[in-house]
Amino acid sequence: MSSSDRVLNAGVLGATGTVGQRFIVLLSQNPMFRIHSLGASERSAGKAYRLATKWKMSDLIPEAIKDVLVKPCDPSQFSGCDVVFSGLDASVAGEIEKAFFEADFAVFSNAKNYRMIPNVPLCVPVVNTDHYALVASQRAERGLKKGFIVTNSNCSTSGLVVPLKALQDKFGPLRRVMVTTLQAISGAGYPGVASLDILDNIVPLIAGEEPKMEAEVMKILGGVTTDASACAPLTDLRVSATCNRVPVLDGHTECVSLEFAGAPPSIEEIKQCLREYTCEAQSLGCYSAPKQVIQLAEQEDRPQPRLDRNAGDGMSVTVGRIRECPVFHVKFTLLVHNTVLGAAGASILNAEYAAKKGYL
Amino acid sequence: MSSSDRVLNAGVLGATGTVGQRFIVLLSQNPMFRIHSLGASERSAGKAYRLATKWKMSDLIPEAIKDVLVKPCDPSQFSGCDVVFSGLDASVAGEIEKAFFEADFAVFSNAKNYRMIPNVPLCVPVVNTDHYALVASQRAERGLKKGFIVTNSNCSTSGLVVPLKALQDKFGPLRRVMVTTLQAISGAGYPGVASLDILDNIVPLIAGEEPKMEAEVMKILGGVTTDASACAPLTDLRVSATCNRVPVLDGHTECVSLEFAGAPPSIEEIKQCLREYTCEAQSLGCYSAPKQVIQLAEQEDRPQPRLDRNAGDGMSVTVGRIRECPVFHVKFTLLVHNTVLGAAGASILNAEYAAKKGYL
Amino acid sequence: MSSSDRVLNAGVLGATGTVGQRFIVLLSQNPMFRIHSLGASERSAGKAYRLATKWKMSDLIPEAIKDVLVKPCDPSQFSGCDVVFSGLDASVAGEIEKAFFEADFAVFSNAKNYRMIPNVPLCVPVVNTDHYALVASQRAERGLKKGFIVTNSNCSTSGLVVPLKALQDKFGPLRRVMVTTLQAISGAGYPGVASLDILDNIVPLIAGEEPKMEAEVMKILGGVTTDASACAPLTDLRVSATCNRVPVLDGHTECVSLEFAGAPPSIEEIKQCLREYTCEAQSLGCYSAPKQVIQLAEQEDRPQPRLDRNAGDGMSVTVGRIRECPVFHVKFTLLVHNTVLGAAGASILNAEYAAKKGYL
Amino acid sequence: MSSSDRVLNAGVLGATGTVGQRFIVLLSQNPMFRIHSLGASERSAGKAYRLATKWKMSDLIPEAIKDVLVKPCDPSQFSGCDVVFSGLDASVAGEIEKAFFEADFAVFSNAKNYRMIPNVPLCVPVVNTDHYALVASQRAERGLKKGFIVTNSNCSTSGLVVPLKALQDKFGPLRRVMVTTLQAISGAGYPGVASLDILDNIVPLIAGEEPKMEAEVMKILGGVTTDASACAPLTDLRVSATCNRVPVLDGHTECVSLEFAGAPPSIEEIKQCLREYTCEAQSLGCYSAPKQVIQLAEQEDRPQPRLDRNAGDGMSVTVGRIRECPVFHVKFTLLVHNTVLGAAGASILNAEYAAKKGYL
Repeated sequence: MSSSDRVLNAGVLGATGTVGQRFIVLLSQNPMFRIHSLGASERSAGKAYRLATKWKMSDLIPEAIKDVLVKPCDPSQFSGCDVVFSGLDASVAGEIEKAFFEADFAVFSNAKNYRMIPNVPLCVPVVNTDHYALVASQRAERGLKKGFIVTNSNCSTSGLVVPLKALQDKFGPLRRVMVTTLQAISGAGYPGVASLDILDNIVPLIAGEEPKMEAEVMKILGGVTTDASACAPLTDLRVSATCNRVPVLDGHTECVSLEFAGAPPSIEEIKQCLREYTCEAQSLGCYSAPKQVIQLAEQEDRPQPRLDRNAGDGMSVTVGRIRECPVFHVKFTLLVHNTVLGAAGASILNAEYAAKKGYL
Repeated sequence: MSSSDRVLNAGVLGATGTVGQRFIVLLSQNPMFRIHSLGASERSAGKAYRLATKWKMSDLIPEAIKDVLVKPCDPSQFSGCDVVFSGLDASVAGEIEKAFFEADFAVFSNAKNYRMIPNVPLCVPVVNTDHYALVASQRAERGLKKGFIVTNSNCSTSGLVVPLKALQDKFGPLRRVMVTTLQAISGAGYPGVASLDILDNIVPLIAGEEPKMEAEVMKILGGVTTDASACAPLTDLRVSATCNRVPVLDGHTECVSLEFAGAPPSIEEIKQCLREYTCEAQSLGCYSAPKQVIQLAEQEDRPQPRLDRNAGDGMSVTVGRIRECPVFHVKFTLLVHNTVLGAAGASILNAEYAAKKGYL
Repeated sequence: MSSSDRVLNAGVLGATGTVGQRFIVLLSQNPMFRIHSLGASERSAGKAYRLATKWKMSDLIPEAIKDVLVKPCDPSQFSGCDVVFSGLDASVAGEIEKAFFEADFAVFSNAKNYRMIPNVPLCVPVVNTDHYALVASQRAERGLKKGFIVTNSNCSTSGLVVPLKALQDKFGPLRRVMVTTLQAISGAGYPGVASLDILDNIVPLIAGEEPKMEAEVMKILGGVTTDASACAPLTDLRVSATCNRVPVLDGHTECVSLEFAGAPPSIEEIKQCLREYTCEAQSLGCYSAPKQVIQLAEQEDRPQPRLDRNAGDGMSVTVGRIRECPVFHVKFTLLVHNTVLGAAGASILNAEYAAKKGYL
Repeated sequence: MSSSDRVLNAGVLGATGTVGQRFIVLLSQNPMFRIHSLGASERSAGKAYRLATKWKMSDLIPEAIKDVLVKPCDPSQFSGCDVVFSGLDASVAGEIEKAFFEADFAVFSNAKNYRMIPNVPLCVPVVNTDHYALVASQRAERGLKKGFIVTNSNCSTSGLVVPLKALQDKFGPLRRVMVTTLQAISGAGYPGVASLDILDNIVPLIAGEEPKMEAEVMKILGGVTTDASACAPLTDLRVSATCNRVPVLDGHTECVSLEFAGAPPSIEEIKQCLREYTCEAQSLGCYSAPKQVIQLAEQEDRPQPRLDRNAGDGMSVTVGRIRECPVFHVKFTLLVHNTVLGAAGASILNAEYAAKKGYL
């Protein structure tokens, strides 16, 4: 029986944090997974989940999870798990994820630590699942049978690369991309952004976000080497990102201008390209794959985070205001749900894809 | 006795609206002007000001103004006024401002109606007071003795042109400018933006704002023809604006990337240039001229609207995050108080300048 | 076949407003109803629904509804409807609802116009469905066969009466109730509250709300006369309401202190009473009846509108902070979803109840 | 020369926190004081103030303070100070304030630690400066010459007691007071309330606030024993407080219902009483005393925090919506600036009063 036909046991590392909470909400509704083990810091270990976490989701804590005892993030405690999702903070993710990976677990991580390692897929599941080809190299390197690590991207990156990938596939390489983001507070975790910093305010800096976003785009939109031993990031594209924090709960808005390397398509051709874009996770019938990868906003004052962030249950990217740019070729505004496609949802769809393709 | 030595009688058109309220707050604290007459719609005319307006400023209604009777916006009612400020809505400003102008009044308008007329100064008072040279042409055209009209720019334009002007003066022409704005709700007047549209939300469109901003920059950064009969907008600069509404009360944040036509200066040279920029309104000793036209933010996560909008009593532009742009030459973030330098404050400083230069 | 066994055709009056939009979202997910006709103003009539409305819900417009043509609110256009839901504004609801009622339609109204008419049930469906006894009187008065009108209460009332009813049923009459509300902006419709009025602000007045709330509580918690010809409001209870508007999208928070007429129960007895409260709509198996009418908040800093408003899909009331009051007997804080149990959801459950009981 | 005729040297303890920042803003504008020494934690000591603090005020850091070196909070470092203001956190205030007091400093504290000590004045300076009579007892107890400690109240208490005092003085004792607060986030300091907890939300609990408020009212509205050795709190008043956190930056709104012990005055008499209320700090000509202790809101939908919090430069309390209560005698809504009259401003006016009366 292939792993895609049975329910997989899932472990969640960092289960008490905001990304961990989102993992739990999404996994509880997902027929491909059963939550098997919850891991958190030593401080939480041994407590019932509902007592160990400060729940901040609008969805209630799933009944079945409330009294699950939290474990320490130690691979020996997670035997029985077919897959491990990590919502760990970067400060601890490096060591713990490595331990699970070396203990032959399939790890799907939301942390930044291993994203830029050449043979680790940095995978937005509606964009570059072809990077799974790197898994064999990982296993060979460490002599593993089942273990590997797949990371998902920064939340703001995950929105941007979706239309860029669609356009690049259809109209050839891009030359220059300028993006300004308006990012939701949930991207900073809990307690995260102080209310005194963001009520009636904008914070025009998210430390480290801009270079991260610029580098991740190059890797995701690139390919892998012919021997599948490393990723092969783009080299000719130039990306400039400016990142702002805004008083919005969920949903990153991104204003994008771009220039094609070759002759630009018309606005109508661009719209059609985005509307028709599909990905392999859809054709494989993955549960979390959105019906429509890119939704075009029907109204000219959309997308808006409050109204559009749940498009495709948070797994679609909504694109609107597609128009000519007086400086580059085209401008548009996109919206991505930063904790779904931008975080936990991406990891889960990455795992579904892995199951369908026999990696689990 | 020159007009700059005596207190000038000021009329305010559209006195009950949000721009009108800001005019009243600022004029009440300004030693160069005495509020003489308040004009509003027929519905308000005849009422005491405090009953005619729905006051929304944090500053209280000035005591001396509370019981002033509102007049209709008819030039015959404003005799005795040395200067007329217009905070009228564009839907009525065209006709009314024309009537005052033709009745030989000096009109300082915040409305968009006459901004793009070739011999009407579109004047950000810390940037292009040299456009006052057009006044003679206006008077000649209509056979007026004292009357003329000076407009100030759109609120988002007024912030952008300040550093652009400083850089252009010092380092020569700019080639390309990309700007994404995060604009405060007060820019839309009252009732303006519905709370259901902006709480926990971003609106990625401000109707008509982007082309207006792109065109105004060209006029303001340009000069006037040698016979001073018309403005001479720039032709070689390309500007692309993307405008968003955000849940902030006052203060427009703008993320700017730009490319010089020639070799770019260093980041340090740019900082020094901005810091040292001065304007004629300062050297004339105009009351509302800020001590520092451009304030450089000292902290890397600034400017922030809540903390920086009142820099220079709202008449300074704060610039921060000055850094190299991976796509163009330089990127920075600026903040302008949209109802002070971006609206009423600009009109008032324009009038102070006019007084000092003998136009009143 | 009884009406409770078949899908009922529903008309929605005022379909383009915020309450109308909520009716459409809820009815689209409700197996007991099929949306048959949408009515709105003459201005909207004849247009496809998606073009006639300015959709503000986070849920997308149901596909099946997008292109339904909007009708004028004229009974002759609604033949085929088994039930008519009214989300009309009070300014027009009086005349239109009367026309439908007299044309023998069963009308479930969210408007205030007929709430205080003695033989019109003012019905919070988890509280006082016994008031349906008044329907016969309505029909007799006008010689109707099927027509009647049932109103639901003001949104803030609908939350308050639920725990009061539970306590009154169990521990006998209440003597005094003091309530201070913190009401969400969605209660004011669209455009409703201006953002300049509510960002970083509280508005301590909701015009007309306090006396409405005080009077509605008396009617709902009272009974009907023995001949079922009129309601019999309480006379001995005294209620004092203070209503504030706060910057929250959905969910009214209410701080309640109360005094029993007799000896007060203990805090533990009160908690148990609230937890165990059930209503007839539940036992009849109505689709929209919440599993738990009153949810007790488990954490001491709850209920919170963002986290708890969707309890029971918006049909439960969440009560927390139950403690002794130094002045009265007991204090607590409750939360009600103002546009679900507080508006459209109540109307729909009222109609489900009517169907189950054979009124339709 | 009396201390009221010369500029006093002021020390500020906890200078880098939010209350400390407010002290610095207010003292910088106050002609009676000169900032002499700034104290903070060991971590900050030795740094320039602008580097030691994370400045969050809308007013800029005063130029004269920017480069002042921060000291540790040790009395030996504060010689030369005539008065010491404490904005320390309660976790450290107990020990440090005691050290200063015992070292013969006059300490004005915003912390809660000593508020309920019988011979420590808990003084809202527009309400109960008669409690300064306790100072002699403090000095006698410790054999001090100049030292004493005066505390100001909790921020929400400071608003409530002002109208209560006015009414009690004029119409005799109160019997019962019910108050529900809507408190600003600045009351929780920085970082304080997480934005994820308060955007689109209400938090219906402020830990420890309700009993604190209830007890402080009793002490402040009471007197002192005839031998001036202890305060004599009220015993017959009953107060019930419910405290909520709301998404407002500054300004606590409080909804109050009250019952007089005797026959109630009319609403008009109450308005007149509040309007005419004066305090000794006014008649002494203290710089920070507001012109009007209680401002009556002129519009029925006021007070509103954004519009009214700066009344009297934050030292006035604004009262509106004065009306009969169906349960008690009268209801009204008040607003107090929680970091001015509710914190630093109260301490400063307390010190001004002490100077005028010869306590310094």
